[in-house]
Amino acid sequence: MAIEVNEKTMTGLNEECGVFGIWGTQKAAEITYYGLHALQHRGQEGAGIVGCCEGTLRQERGLGLLADVFGKGTRLVNLAGSTSALGHVRYATSGANGIENIQPLLAHFSDTQLALAHNGNLTNQVSLRRQLEAEGAIFQSTSDSEILLHLIRHSKATTLTAQIKDALNQIHGGFAFLLLTPNALYAALDPHGFRPFVIGQLPGGEYIVTSETAALNVVGAKLVRDVFPGELIKIDDTGMQIDHFTDKTALQIDAMEYIYFARPDSDIYGINVHNARKRMGARLANEHPVEADMVVGVPNSSLSAASGYAEALGLPNEMGLVKNQYIARTFIEPTQERRERSVRMKLAAVASIVKNQRVVLVDDSIVRGTTSMYIVKMLREAGAKEVHVRIASPAFKFPSFYGIDMQTTAELMAANHSLAEMTALIGADSLAFLSVDGLVNAIGLNQQVAGTGLTTAYFDGHYPSPIYDYAPTMAKFVATGKVDYMEEPR
Amino acid sequence: MAIEVNEKTMTGLNEECGVFGIWGTQKAAEITYYGLHALQHRGQEGAGIVGCCEGTLRQERGLGLLADVFGKGTRLVNLAGSTSALGHVRYATSGANGIENIQPLLAHFSDTQLALAHNGNLTNQVSLRRQLEAEGAIFQSTSDSEILLHLIRHSKATTLTAQIKDALNQIHGGFAFLLLTPNALYAALDPHGFRPFVIGQLPGGEYIVTSETAALNVVGAKLVRDVFPGELIKIDDTGMQIDHFTDKTALQIDAMEYIYFARPDSDIYGINVHNARKRMGARLANEHPVEADMVVGVPNSSLSAASGYAEALGLPNEMGLVKNQYIARTFIEPTQERRERSVRMKLAAVASIVKNQRVVLVDDSIVRGTTSMYIVKMLREAGAKEVHVRIASPAFKFPSFYGIDMQTTAELMAANHSLAEMTALIGADSLAFLSVDGLVNAIGLNQQVAGTGLTTAYFDGHYPSPIYDYAPTMAKFVATGKVDYMEEPR
Amino acid sequence: MAIEVNEKTMTGLNEECGVFGIWGTQKAAEITYYGLHALQHRGQEGAGIVGCCEGTLRQERGLGLLADVFGKGTRLVNLAGSTSALGHVRYATSGANGIENIQPLLAHFSDTQLALAHNGNLTNQVSLRRQLEAEGAIFQSTSDSEILLHLIRHSKATTLTAQIKDALNQIHGGFAFLLLTPNALYAALDPHGFRPFVIGQLPGGEYIVTSETAALNVVGAKLVRDVFPGELIKIDDTGMQIDHFTDKTALQIDAMEYIYFARPDSDIYGINVHNARKRMGARLANEHPVEADMVVGVPNSSLSAASGYAEALGLPNEMGLVKNQYIARTFIEPTQERRERSVRMKLAAVASIVKNQRVVLVDDSIVRGTTSMYIVKMLREAGAKEVHVRIASPAFKFPSFYGIDMQTTAELMAANHSLAEMTALIGADSLAFLSVDGLVNAIGLNQQVAGTGLTTAYFDGHYPSPIYDYAPTMAKFVATGKVDYMEEPR
Amino acid sequence: MAIEVNEKTMTGLNEECGVFGIWGTQKAAEITYYGLHALQHRGQEGAGIVGCCEGTLRQERGLGLLADVFGKGTRLVNLAGSTSALGHVRYATSGANGIENIQPLLAHFSDTQLALAHNGNLTNQVSLRRQLEAEGAIFQSTSDSEILLHLIRHSKATTLTAQIKDALNQIHGGFAFLLLTPNALYAALDPHGFRPFVIGQLPGGEYIVTSETAALNVVGAKLVRDVFPGELIKIDDTGMQIDHFTDKTALQIDAMEYIYFARPDSDIYGINVHNARKRMGARLANEHPVEADMVVGVPNSSLSAASGYAEALGLPNEMGLVKNQYIARTFIEPTQERRERSVRMKLAAVASIVKNQRVVLVDDSIVRGTTSMYIVKMLREAGAKEVHVRIASPAFKFPSFYGIDMQTTAELMAANHSLAEMTALIGADSLAFLSVDGLVNAIGLNQQVAGTGLTTAYFDGHYPSPIYDYAPTMAKFVATGKVDYMEEPR
Repeated sequence: MAIEVNEKTMTGLNEECGVFGIWGTQKAAEITYYGLHALQHRGQEGAGIVGCCEGTLRQERGLGLLADVFGKGTRLVNLAGSTSALGHVRYATSGANGIENIQPLLAHFSDTQLALAHNGNLTNQVSLRRQLEAEGAIFQSTSDSEILLHLIRHSKATTLTAQIKDALNQIHGGFAFLLLTPNALYAALDPHGFRPFVIGQLPGGEYIVTSETAALNVVGAKLVRDVFPGELIKIDDTGMQIDHFTDKTALQIDAMEYIYFARPDSDIYGINVHNARKRMGARLANEHPVEADMVVGVPNSSLSAASGYAEALGLPNEMGLVKNQYIARTFIEPTQERRERSVRMKLAAVASIVKNQRVVLVDDSIVRGTTSMYIVKMLREAGAKEVHVRIASPAFKFPSFYGIDMQTTAELMAANHSLAEMTALIGADSLAFLSVDGLVNAIGLNQQVAGTGLTTAYFDGHYPSPIYDYAPTMAKFVATGKVDYMEEPR
Repeated sequence: MAIEVNEKTMTGLNEECGVFGIWGTQKAAEITYYGLHALQHRGQEGAGIVGCCEGTLRQERGLGLLADVFGKGTRLVNLAGSTSALGHVRYATSGANGIENIQPLLAHFSDTQLALAHNGNLTNQVSLRRQLEAEGAIFQSTSDSEILLHLIRHSKATTLTAQIKDALNQIHGGFAFLLLTPNALYAALDPHGFRPFVIGQLPGGEYIVTSETAALNVVGAKLVRDVFPGELIKIDDTGMQIDHFTDKTALQIDAMEYIYFARPDSDIYGINVHNARKRMGARLANEHPVEADMVVGVPNSSLSAASGYAEALGLPNEMGLVKNQYIARTFIEPTQERRERSVRMKLAAVASIVKNQRVVLVDDSIVRGTTSMYIVKMLREAGAKEVHVRIASPAFKFPSFYGIDMQTTAELMAANHSLAEMTALIGADSLAFLSVDGLVNAIGLNQQVAGTGLTTAYFDGHYPSPIYDYAPTMAKFVATGKVDYMEEPR
Repeated sequence: MAIEVNEKTMTGLNEECGVFGIWGTQKAAEITYYGLHALQHRGQEGAGIVGCCEGTLRQERGLGLLADVFGKGTRLVNLAGSTSALGHVRYATSGANGIENIQPLLAHFSDTQLALAHNGNLTNQVSLRRQLEAEGAIFQSTSDSEILLHLIRHSKATTLTAQIKDALNQIHGGFAFLLLTPNALYAALDPHGFRPFVIGQLPGGEYIVTSETAALNVVGAKLVRDVFPGELIKIDDTGMQIDHFTDKTALQIDAMEYIYFARPDSDIYGINVHNARKRMGARLANEHPVEADMVVGVPNSSLSAASGYAEALGLPNEMGLVKNQYIARTFIEPTQERRERSVRMKLAAVASIVKNQRVVLVDDSIVRGTTSMYIVKMLREAGAKEVHVRIASPAFKFPSFYGIDMQTTAELMAANHSLAEMTALIGADSLAFLSVDGLVNAIGLNQQVAGTGLTTAYFDGHYPSPIYDYAPTMAKFVATGKVDYMEEPR
Repeated sequence: MAIEVNEKTMTGLNEECGVFGIWGTQKAAEITYYGLHALQHRGQEGAGIVGCCEGTLRQERGLGLLADVFGKGTRLVNLAGSTSALGHVRYATSGANGIENIQPLLAHFSDTQLALAHNGNLTNQVSLRRQLEAEGAIFQSTSDSEILLHLIRHSKATTLTAQIKDALNQIHGGFAFLLLTPNALYAALDPHGFRPFVIGQLPGGEYIVTSETAALNVVGAKLVRDVFPGELIKIDDTGMQIDHFTDKTALQIDAMEYIYFARPDSDIYGINVHNARKRMGARLANEHPVEADMVVGVPNSSLSAASGYAEALGLPNEMGLVKNQYIARTFIEPTQERRERSVRMKLAAVASIVKNQRVVLVDDSIVRGTTSMYIVKMLREAGAKEVHVRIASPAFKFPSFYGIDMQTTAELMAANHSLAEMTALIGADSLAFLSVDGLVNAIGLNQQVAGTGLTTAYFDGHYPSPIYDYAPTMAKFVATGKVDYMEEPR
């Protein structure tokens, strides 16, 4: 029987998260809490920490921001004395998700305990889940992360390390896993390295593995190096052992990490994100210059690109949009009127800056296009004479399967409209996107590894790894004729 | 008996807040909620809305951010159908404050109801409270705002308007009051206009009075004009009547509103705050230029000034510091180690930008100096070769009595140290402040009204109005010889 | 202007509560907590304790049962170290009441603090409140108890004791007040002693004043004596001083305390409540015997009376109804179907006991009659051949004004129906009530003081004290001709 | 490897609960809620309901009493429209248990959903859990109930009914299971019928299976018959099918259900619990009469037995102890002083009744003996001249393994002390227990089935079924020589 995965499940299953693991310090839980703060941008739906104290793993987790979950009450106190810990921040997907999906997951066995934190998305999760259920497995969450736990326990291998390798070779897609037992901390990255994953060290030598270098900085740790695709790292009281679960690897990190997801102060494979964005802006200026009076970036994510764009053309870079820093969370905004207000609550145009000016509005990406539409409208209401929209990444046409919750293609503006249509819909005087080549060059990763080293499937449909359970849906999508799709040979 | 006010009470009583009042629309409570969002930067301790529905005032309030108080649950639903409303966001003072101090306050009488929202600080509150208690008054809060309610009820005048005027003439200090009854909305500003206060109008003609123009923008209202010092404005179903409770007025708006408190997209007395800050930065560059490779502003409040500084000297304005947008609230940080971590959680230096660079760090102000010290340290750790600190306001030496919670002078760095000492303590290569004249000129308000139009008492000790209950403490402070103090003649 | 008090306010203002005050022990708050447990039957809406620690009064209170408010969390810990304390449990009135009405009330003044706990109802509260408001008073609650605070503060007397006496002489109705300051604990009982109020002593000599002797027993205290009508008692570090605020006193304790409210193990003016109820049952048996197979009491409040009835007639006293001990609180039951289910959830008939039996159902009182109707129905469904209802108190025809929340007369079954009608409505084979004389003799208080010593106004309309603000409504009620009303001469 | 089960786990694993299942009515969830109220005495730690609405099972559960979990908020509303439902109330064991153990458990599979509610205890749970884990199973709770889910899913049988039978034949101990799928409701009782389990029918013909007949009464259902040992009942839209999973059955219902656990208005195998208790009291009077002035039962559980005792000897049955109906839950009482106060908060002696009297105190059982000690002390303090303790069940010497949380034998007073020692420890003038024969005869079940039909292992050590994982501990216990132990031949 063919496995059916509809667009709804495709969206719902995806997730973008942040993870942090540490071994060998009395303040493991507290440091994890601080480290997670630097990863909060990667997930705001929920947060959790599992700490190991005197051989026993204890779990604390809750819905909401880190400060809501751990900043008050006794959750952090309950973890005091932990000498190793695992932390996770979870992305807010649209569906109402329960506490059982908040990670790290913690499983109790008669002989051990196992905690797991995951950033990514498995492309064969539906198949695996059905197979495991057929063997009698009972799942406690709807998260795909739990699959790894079952695979490990179902493995016939005789050591935990061998069982983990066994399990890792059965899953596909993008994954950066941290596992904690009372005896060791494990870290594993998928064979394409879709997600960033770094190793750091505290001044005392204690090891940390986490999603971004920004989390190392906040706890005073130094970067050791990035985790490489296919590696399985084990950290215990004897130190760090670097192993690998597969040889068939090829770095293809998700380009969206450089474009939008990662923090500007993080370095990924040696490349600073802010600098990469600035180069994207500069490249965009070269590809699509405009005669204008000023550049205005959409705060905060597009300020780097705007700065690069402005410098390249010698235009003033002005603060024509102000962001309200207190709107981290808003309630559901169902109506059109409310969606517009939601944007107005987050952003305000500064009339005294943009009035009678020709403005180049630089944004990092366009997904559904509604936010861009409202921003252009706000700038015009504030008196802007012209608004030229420049996007510091290519047009977004294909869904993601490796760990980002990208709206179904039905809602992707660039998948359904021509450039001219988009320009009209957004209400801009002109609209232009960075080319895929421009993006790849601006990031500059291709000078270090074979290939581009990047996944740019959102823009060109070249998926670097099989998409398994998603294939039928993708096929239907391609059949519409609006886009090409080319999976890399397995 | 002399009234004794110690430094503790001086600090504790001060507060900075945001207020929003609206009359005559079915969506009064919802609009107030959206408007308050644009004022959240003025207070994060608590929020409240009183709505009037069919002649009855209903109160909803809670501790925490607006989104926590009104973004979930039924509080906003409970106010649905209100045709007028009053909202308030409250500043987080250090003491643990209870729900009873969250405004708007609401008083029930046999003959009417009265709701009150206040932004400011009364300098004769202790005297008034004792006098009222001697007359039998029982206070339900420790907020000075409640005093006005008692004064109104104790007045012998025969109309509410006359009672309000009577009460307003007994209080001193800085105050922007909104009062709501089932019949009218009142707004009053102190004779010196210490706090910003503006009147707006929705497209349908409904009036709004609020703290900043940013709150008008978010709800789609147009600015009518600023409220002027000494005015008492009454809005009811017949329209708006502008009256005044005193003739002895002189605009002396608190300079800190332009420097730090107000949002950059707000206009105060016709001057845009972002532009004023940019001019402060430019003026600072003229007064204290540096030979450097780049300018780095402390996000977010100092980005305008940094931009002005950089443009004036033709230096690149770089994003050398990144702000974590999710650290709105942190728990109490008692130890030195934790205070440093708190800064590191909020800000991160970008090594790939500042490494081996001579950096001009532009900040809006220095209060205790500890934050500046940690930022300089972070920049150096990130490889900055030189760090020159430039403050886009004068040195902060005197306490505030008109509505800002400024740490006791004992903690004011500039009140206790010479420039050389401060430079060393902060660890900067050089340190310089904007002059008071430079500040006044950069804001540019003096071209519009007599005098400077500004209160700069923090910097020069010239208090434009008597400080009443604070006088004994101030005398002790002056007696230390470290600072001069000159109260303007009453 | 005539004061208008409608039936709604008549009902809403009434309340029945429990109070507990203690002076001079390190465990004052903890002992108060235990003592209040023995008074929980007097009020389940909310609970509060004010403790005095090192000269400062601290307040903790919340909605719900004592165990909900103080049994978890830190409220009791926050009061640790208190050397004196005041506690209150509040009756659940029908209206949705806020936290501001939960007692003890606590008022902060520049010169002192004053906490107040009250059991009773003031008959001139509306007049007093309007008068105080006219003098400028602002009320923070809708509770009548706050009036005493304002009267004390408005008094021109020069000592607190004199101010309290001054205030007590201005209020009318039923009241048992406890007041706590950092210097002393005060207790005052109204001139008719409508509510029970006793003084106790711990083995260490520390004084307690509380509503019932049951609260003394639970904390291991001995009864000293009842508080007498018109007394003002002051307890401080020098011991107890018994004073009085009026000489015009006459004991008229509310008969409902013996019939229903007080705990069976409490003694009121030397008479044990269980014994009194047993005598009521016996007297009822003499007045209205039945030929039957067994007596069944409605648990728990009517078990004493049932036992007396059964013994007097030599009938077996059987457990034909079982009470579910876990239904302390149920949610609102609006429909007829749900109201019936609510009774069924609380009580169950035991078929194996009542099947084919002639049952005498003994209950303590009938208010609306619906509960009785459902119980009779349940007994018949369980197979009872005959059900004779015997009520161990007279028919309830008049409202209460001295501190009991008695449903408006519109709902009082006996005020609107003849005995024959009631019998039919309830579905009983016969129905009979105890006579007023029988009640008075069964309680037996008239042998100790002049008059009956009891208020039996519910049954005969003889109100022992003026009803002030309630007079107009009562007049309307009497005008219907259904009942007589005779106020005692003032 | 020998399985080690220590006394701690023996205690911790035991539990006593109540279950309720219904099929085929639109108000399934609401009726389950009402039904559970009648079972609240069987468990107060937590409550849950799973309802099936349009083919999907939805779960709502929480910690605390039913009224806390479902009486407010939206949990019951969330289940509206369910046409079948399963409910559970959970016993408060001493350990801090998390929400994951609150039943009904709900498991989601790709092909179906399965909800489970369980009353009982499996004696081979540790073995089974280890075996299942060895096969890769991951448990989400520490509850033994989850084992059945795994056994069902691991079964090789091809129909759900066959899988359930397969699973039921692998577990041992006492169990009354309800399982709900979108297609049917299943009920299964262990081969000895340790726990009560009854089938009822609503007037409309809809079937209910629940723990006690009291739950049928409250929802207006009629008893169909008791579930018999070894039966597997399936209820679906075609009606009820009665099947069995084993033939090797012998009724041995736990005698403690008649003595203490069940509600007095419930009937178990045709015998009313109140009547059984009354006969125990009468039998106790015959075996151990006393010359005394009155009988006093410990409320509420011993009132039936006290009534039987009093009638048999012609003594008055008096309410010498009063129970505070509001102490359903108290916080942990660690110290001796607090434990005594805890008893005093629950019970009060009525001095005016017991003073100078010779009292026979009737209680249903003695476990640790401390409560009895405090009650005797209270009666003496209240003036009782003599206190003779009579226990309406035999001395409790052996632990339970079939579903009751009986304190470890180390704390069982009768397991460690002679009758003389116990009398002295309790402080009674005399102490006597009902004989095992007396108990069996008073219940009277032996006239209906072969054997006694009762499990009396607590009293005589005759365990009717193997105790599997508990055997090693039991062996150690027996080795102390203080008690005999005789397991029935398997």
